[in-house]
Amino acid sequence: MVDTQNIVFLGLGLISGSLAMALRRSGWQGELSAWGPREPSLEQGLNLGVIDRYDLDFDRAIENADVLVIGAPPMATGELLGRVLGWIQRSDEQPIVTDLASMKGWVVERALPRYARFVPGHPIAGSENSGVTAARPDLFDGREAILTPEDSTDPEAVAWVTAMWQRAGSRVTTMSVADHDAALAASSHLPHMLAYALTKVLADDPLQPMHHGGGALRDMTRIAASDPVMWRDVALTNRSALIAAMQSVEQELARLRELIAAQDSAALEDYFALCRSIRRGHDAVLNPMVEPDEVSAKGVSDQTLEEQGSS
Amino acid sequence: MVDTQNIVFLGLGLISGSLAMALRRSGWQGELSAWGPREPSLEQGLNLGVIDRYDLDFDRAIENADVLVIGAPPMATGELLGRVLGWIQRSDEQPIVTDLASMKGWVVERALPRYARFVPGHPIAGSENSGVTAARPDLFDGREAILTPEDSTDPEAVAWVTAMWQRAGSRVTTMSVADHDAALAASSHLPHMLAYALTKVLADDPLQPMHHGGGALRDMTRIAASDPVMWRDVALTNRSALIAAMQSVEQELARLRELIAAQDSAALEDYFALCRSIRRGHDAVLNPMVEPDEVSAKGVSDQTLEEQGSS
Repeated sequence: MVDTQNIVFLGLGLISGSLAMALRRSGWQGELSAWGPREPSLEQGLNLGVIDRYDLDFDRAIENADVLVIGAPPMATGELLGRVLGWIQRSDEQPIVTDLASMKGWVVERALPRYARFVPGHPIAGSENSGVTAARPDLFDGREAILTPEDSTDPEAVAWVTAMWQRAGSRVTTMSVADHDAALAASSHLPHMLAYALTKVLADDPLQPMHHGGGALRDMTRIAASDPVMWRDVALTNRSALIAAMQSVEQELARLRELIAAQDSAALEDYFALCRSIRRGHDAVLNPMVEPDEVSAKGVSDQTLEEQGSS
Repeated sequence: MVDTQNIVFLGLGLISGSLAMALRRSGWQGELSAWGPREPSLEQGLNLGVIDRYDLDFDRAIENADVLVIGAPPMATGELLGRVLGWIQRSDEQPIVTDLASMKGWVVERALPRYARFVPGHPIAGSENSGVTAARPDLFDGREAILTPEDSTDPEAVAWVTAMWQRAGSRVTTMSVADHDAALAASSHLPHMLAYALTKVLADDPLQPMHHGGGALRDMTRIAASDPVMWRDVALTNRSALIAAMQSVEQELARLRELIAAQDSAALEDYFALCRSIRRGHDAVLNPMVEPDEVSAKGVSDQTLEEQGSS
């Protein structure tokens, strides 16, 4: 890939800012610029060296872009995509366009007029902190970036976006829009809803159990601090897949609760042993490049686990 | 407190081993020894310098103990406690006895014959890794250790166990057995059940969503790798409080799912914003960044004096 293209980020936040930093780290030669609705964020990005330049005028911002990366919450991504594709239809330009949104079906439905050089994308990385000040160049290291091109998508554009994510540190996979949305509803959107529901239940408890939390509670509620607008949009735009995933986990919880009520000791031990083995089997994919300080921060939970077998 | 007492750990694993290491770090002068059912663990503990000595003979192991710390999964803790209290009744010895189990009601019911120098305890710290090889001297730094003494408990024994945990780096609080079990069902046992149910649902999904997980899924499933025997015992021995906590979160999940189905955008954003604010409000307690000096210094002992007054 040529690394002299000019990339314009439409919206500058945690993910788009981290992508810019990761590309910079890789020695990117082209210009990295941004447009956004709020000047302070753009100014912060400029001051932090995340971008080379910003422009508050939409048309002027995108006119020399080789590549447009839409980095906004889902609802805003849908709007910006329509705006960009309309502009492209009226112009002679053929920039590559990609997005970062957590669901792809809703976005693809809004990618009108149809444009072969739009490559729907979703990097599986993030943080409960939002905004460009939380951006970091290593956010994507070892993490998956999923692309969901369709048969009509320009293969050259797909190859370009693939190479971009690889330069940013990601491993790139492709899948269908429907598989992406169902898999991510389960692997990402559902965990967020669990963290939210858990946090709400604990906050409503007069015993204030959140004051007696250890590492388990820290980890199980961390993402409840995520951006409310972003997650409102995710819940609404991947609604049916998320509802199905939530129903599955509600049923599973009820099943587990019934095993506990029935005092089915053997079934419980089997259940938990299976989960230990599943989780350990996914350790590499879930902890792709763990830094030493992260290991010590993550290695603590509030179980009192002792040697077994005294009986 | 005198730091020349001999402490015998009954069961040597992650928590008891970490306690031994933390006491050693604090300059403990007395002997730290262990009994356990499996020699390899004890030998590892000895080789790692966690303990000074071990004995495979139960009666001989405990005969010169000033303090007995029972460090075993709940079911085994119940058995060991009965064995220890029976031995004490037959002997002239009056050692302080404490335990580390995650639920207190079930343990206290098994503390027979009644013994005023048994102080039920629960350090809110742990790891999904088990065994003495996972022990670390800083495991308790800044973490809460909860004691649940009763009116009949010897105040001198409570003060001793309090001081021991402070030396290990913990801040010590006391509460009733019932409050402890309900609060910990919500803050610790429930999060583990959520991690288990989530892991099981994802493993059963033909799309293999666990292959597409990021930091959210990493954190939300980490504790599903916890020790199956330990968590079987927790689920069984804190059954009614845990079932109530699970029902609360199931109802909350259904409520949240209904907001999504109803596309109630404003309510969802409010819900998520509230959770962000709750979680951020508990950041200090969930991510204690306490300097070792501060831990053993006065803030903690002041609190303890106050707590002792109310016990």
